[in-house]
Amino acid sequence: MIPIGERINGSFPDMKRAIAARDKKPVQELALKQKEAGAAYLDCNVGTAAADQEAAMRWLVETIQEVTDTPIAIDSQKLAVVRAGLDAIDNPKGCIVNSCSGDEEKLDIYMPMCIKNNASLIALTMTREGVPQNVEARVEVAATIIGKASEHGMATDRLFIDPIILPVNIPGAQAQPGYILDALGQIKIMTDPPVHITCGLSNLSQGTQERHLINRTFLAMAAAVGLDSAIVDVLDTDLMDAWITAEMLLNKQIYSDSFLKAARMNM
Amino acid sequence: MIPIGERINGSFPDMKRAIAARDKKPVQELALKQKEAGAAYLDCNVGTAAADQEAAMRWLVETIQEVTDTPIAIDSQKLAVVRAGLDAIDNPKGCIVNSCSGDEEKLDIYMPMCIKNNASLIALTMTREGVPQNVEARVEVAATIIGKASEHGMATDRLFIDPIILPVNIPGAQAQPGYILDALGQIKIMTDPPVHITCGLSNLSQGTQERHLINRTFLAMAAAVGLDSAIVDVLDTDLMDAWITAEMLLNKQIYSDSFLKAARMNM
Repeated sequence: MIPIGERINGSFPDMKRAIAARDKKPVQELALKQKEAGAAYLDCNVGTAAADQEAAMRWLVETIQEVTDTPIAIDSQKLAVVRAGLDAIDNPKGCIVNSCSGDEEKLDIYMPMCIKNNASLIALTMTREGVPQNVEARVEVAATIIGKASEHGMATDRLFIDPIILPVNIPGAQAQPGYILDALGQIKIMTDPPVHITCGLSNLSQGTQERHLINRTFLAMAAAVGLDSAIVDVLDTDLMDAWITAEMLLNKQIYSDSFLKAARMNM
Repeated sequence: MIPIGERINGSFPDMKRAIAARDKKPVQELALKQKEAGAAYLDCNVGTAAADQEAAMRWLVETIQEVTDTPIAIDSQKLAVVRAGLDAIDNPKGCIVNSCSGDEEKLDIYMPMCIKNNASLIALTMTREGVPQNVEARVEVAATIIGKASEHGMATDRLFIDPIILPVNIPGAQAQPGYILDALGQIKIMTDPPVHITCGLSNLSQGTQERHLINRTFLAMAAAVGLDSAIVDVLDTDLMDAWITAEMLLNKQIYSDSFLKAARMNM
């Protein structure tokens, strides 16, 4: 399991303030707390906290790297901001670029850039035409992404496919989580070894009243059909417990009476 | 979702005492509590509480029927005990016979008996040779069961297939839950409409220290690949919450901010 800690993101008020004021302490505290809670990567998104997003991303990456060597996921839709983040990365384990759409011309830019920078890539099953609304179209975009990875020589274990989860409470969108589960099962068997599958989990429960329950239930369901990574609130203990348990039931974590504790020791 | 309440079972000390003493009150209280908590069926197992298991089953069925019309699942491996239970059933909705192995000669006895008695059947993916240890053998037994149902004219919606879950803490058995998930996905698409898939969920966590967490996590995972019924502790609120949430995420329960409450009102 590859948990990506979601909290260092300028869309949260505490991080927005910290980034705007270049206040290192709250960022570094959240970095260490998320590392402690099991984050394999720390997502890093400047949001709308700064006019100069490139400078803010550089500062954020440097600030995190001062206190931990947990690799960073550079989260931006803007190529220039991603490049600024990549330039600041100083970690032999590399990083993740989060994210690139499934449009061929975008993949042709992002994949060589990632390979050159020792970075993994999260590629979204969406194109400039939008987010697919059915299973087939999602699988089709995933096939395009995997084909491009093969063309560019990107190893499958450096590629994360993100099926784009939308809030379940959007009118008319309630079938989407089921479609995503179906799509994941098909994407997982496209390559051997399989690509990683990740998702921005919290998006699913946006605006709902049972956020934690919805998040951890879907995470267990998605793990059953091949998801092995997620951008999540690693500080949500119940969520992490559910995920560890799902991995144990899939025989990816050894069972012992204290399997929760044992798993956390290995994170 | 078809929750089968597991608690009226002579292997629990309170029920063992009640059955041995023919004390109706604890049985009827548990029947009503489970109905209230959402049980679609009440499992009914005399266990080892009585020398005359047939008389005990008759008494148990009659005792439950005095207070509720929630249908019963007659739970015994002995044909004579099942027949005694069937004779006592007085419910236009019928009942479930729990359970029959996947041996052809057994199915040839149980299926006509169920059809004649307006009963559904839980058929186990095991044979006299034991419980299969891999995906293929489980799917093969399921195919035998489904073939027999077709031969006997048993509708797929009267058939529940149970893949037999063993405790995850048995040395060497930790791969089994994953195999079961794989098998369920294949069994679900064997017929259209699909057969029901159920399991004795609590068995999975037998002897473990995180029983509730393991049960509810696996239930969500299994729901993702087609399980729509389970023999469970319906009084475990967190478990039922997880199951309702999984069904909502599969678009089988309508989303509203109070979907948990709404689902319970329809149970």
